[in-house]
Amino acid sequence: MSEVYAARRTRLREYCNAGGSAAALVSRPANVRYLAGAAPHGAVLLLGKTEDLLLCPGSSADRPTQERPDEALRVQTLPGPGGGDPAVAAAGIADGQGADSLAVEEHHLTVARHKALGSVAPRLRLANLGSAVEQLRVVKDEEEISCLRIGAEIADQALGELLESILVGRTERHLALELERRLVDHGADGPAFPTAVGTGPNAGRPGHRPTDRRVEEGDFLSVCLGATYRGYRCEIGRTFVIGTAPADWQIELYDLVFAAQRAGRESLVPGAACRDVDRSARQVLDSAGYTEGLTALTGHGVGLEIDEDPQLSPAAMGKLDACVPVTVEPGVHLPGRGGVRIDDTLVVRPEADGGPELLTITTKELLAL
Amino acid sequence: MSEVYAARRTRLREYCNAGGSAAALVSRPANVRYLAGAAPHGAVLLLGKTEDLLLCPGSSADRPTQERPDEALRVQTLPGPGGGDPAVAAAGIADGQGADSLAVEEHHLTVARHKALGSVAPRLRLANLGSAVEQLRVVKDEEEISCLRIGAEIADQALGELLESILVGRTERHLALELERRLVDHGADGPAFPTAVGTGPNAGRPGHRPTDRRVEEGDFLSVCLGATYRGYRCEIGRTFVIGTAPADWQIELYDLVFAAQRAGRESLVPGAACRDVDRSARQVLDSAGYTEGLTALTGHGVGLEIDEDPQLSPAAMGKLDACVPVTVEPGVHLPGRGGVRIDDTLVVRPEADGGPELLTITTKELLAL
Repeated sequence: MSEVYAARRTRLREYCNAGGSAAALVSRPANVRYLAGAAPHGAVLLLGKTEDLLLCPGSSADRPTQERPDEALRVQTLPGPGGGDPAVAAAGIADGQGADSLAVEEHHLTVARHKALGSVAPRLRLANLGSAVEQLRVVKDEEEISCLRIGAEIADQALGELLESILVGRTERHLALELERRLVDHGADGPAFPTAVGTGPNAGRPGHRPTDRRVEEGDFLSVCLGATYRGYRCEIGRTFVIGTAPADWQIELYDLVFAAQRAGRESLVPGAACRDVDRSARQVLDSAGYTEGLTALTGHGVGLEIDEDPQLSPAAMGKLDACVPVTVEPGVHLPGRGGVRIDDTLVVRPEADGGPELLTITTKELLAL
Repeated sequence: MSEVYAARRTRLREYCNAGGSAAALVSRPANVRYLAGAAPHGAVLLLGKTEDLLLCPGSSADRPTQERPDEALRVQTLPGPGGGDPAVAAAGIADGQGADSLAVEEHHLTVARHKALGSVAPRLRLANLGSAVEQLRVVKDEEEISCLRIGAEIADQALGELLESILVGRTERHLALELERRLVDHGADGPAFPTAVGTGPNAGRPGHRPTDRRVEEGDFLSVCLGATYRGYRCEIGRTFVIGTAPADWQIELYDLVFAAQRAGRESLVPGAACRDVDRSARQVLDSAGYTEGLTALTGHGVGLEIDEDPQLSPAAMGKLDACVPVTVEPGVHLPGRGGVRIDDTLVVRPEADGGPELLTITTKELLAL
């Protein structure tokens, strides 16, 4: 693995040098982890003029991480508690190495930290690294995709087991907690995000947090969960009907969202514009008259964070590449009645390789439980 | 409650005006919630020259909060997805109201957002609000303390129920998940922080995350958990022995940490220097020869965040006031053998009111389970 991290750092270094900076300071935790193999709490990565260095605060020993940093990388822990901000120490080191410019993550560093960097190394020009590391992270290697695939299997297992149990009478909160327990049982580091469970009028509601409402006969039941595996986060969402016979409106709504989600999935090809993928899914709902209350996105990238680039939205710029994992998750919610959301994680693949690879394989038939 | 929020905003406004700023922009979520009663995802609070305003991003509708903002406060949701950064909109409004200076939270705003504020309102001088709101939050009112008290009761209940169950053979992860489920069952919004459970050599280890290690006879078992209730977060930590007869070294170590924790608790009086409270606890451990591997803090404030001012540490400045809730949580960990941590949440009270109020009342006798 060490070569992988070294190669990522080389790519970033080339990007920085091309922009006129001999050194870069990476502070956003997911970016630190991507480049260093681990992100101890509060650690920053200095791509220095003469050496790369992972700088950890003295307090990071209080919060050990499961991951080990790349062995090829020198790790320096600041002395004791109150040893100061590793970002400030990094600026001092960059200055001492003779760098005249340091590119920093202006979208992550606070104004206060930025000022402290300027104070400790006034000769150093602070440039903006922008979201260069986030852009490197968009296309995944097969090792990363393998972590997502295992996470998706874990989420499928947790969901499958829940569906075999008795659901009527249990609360949304209980179901969510049980799903999270099962994720961990099956080997997840933890949930990828807070598990969402909605019943009846809450089903399919964007951003719904589990309540004490109990599952009733005739309800829609929507769940959205994901596993974190070796830091990689995936997502699956399904909607079910409780009882033996779904109502006509439930079947119609389900079929519509299913059609929208399928249209989104089928448009995932290398080179497709992100806004066109969004439109494929969205126009199915639009043309059935559901224009109100749709969410801003019909999907998004996943990886070390659950919400990464690219965004699948009407205003999105850019195109999809092969080996980009994204969610496709359109939904409709009818206030007071409930709704449907269907959410998969897939990897964009060329048609010659079989087209989009579906990671979350739980059935999307309308199950009556 | 509305008067409470209005009074808090008045205090902050007076502070800003004294510093020469007619307007302030609060972006840190816990600070927004403190002043506005709720902090929808991404929302910022503008204390304007002519009017206060809670500005929410268009996407905040996707993530509803349980709390309702102060009704006396005008709430404005930016149009649609991609409606932009509420902080930038706030700067535009402050400028439009004729403010010449806007105090912002430089320790929270990123450099990128700060620049965007400067671009939208170039005439506006951006000053630094610093941690003014955090300082207002240190001393709690009785309503806030009441939320902490209920949260502590919930944590006590969850812990008490766990102690009545069979523990041998269960994994740290399972025990942690069960505690979190019980917190929610008893009415918590959720855990105040990730529940820590350590067994055997992991017991009492700072920052330990639950593993698949199972509880064995003769182990120390340490747990640290807390409930969030109406946004307020408390903390309790206890250490137990598994089996009928603790070993001598376990009893000695427990008695020592207990003595240190009691010394810390007893020094909680209004006017006490924070570093002196830390020293009272720390010197008990020091004088027994445990100087290595102690954590940087022996306690900290709690409230809308689990780790607030004041800090109880050797380098801490400042003194304790009445009605400040803090943890007292010294511990000792012996690598390879395990250790002890005892952690309570208490409220500083004058002696005339009975001295420090203990919120977490689970026994601190050494229980053999």
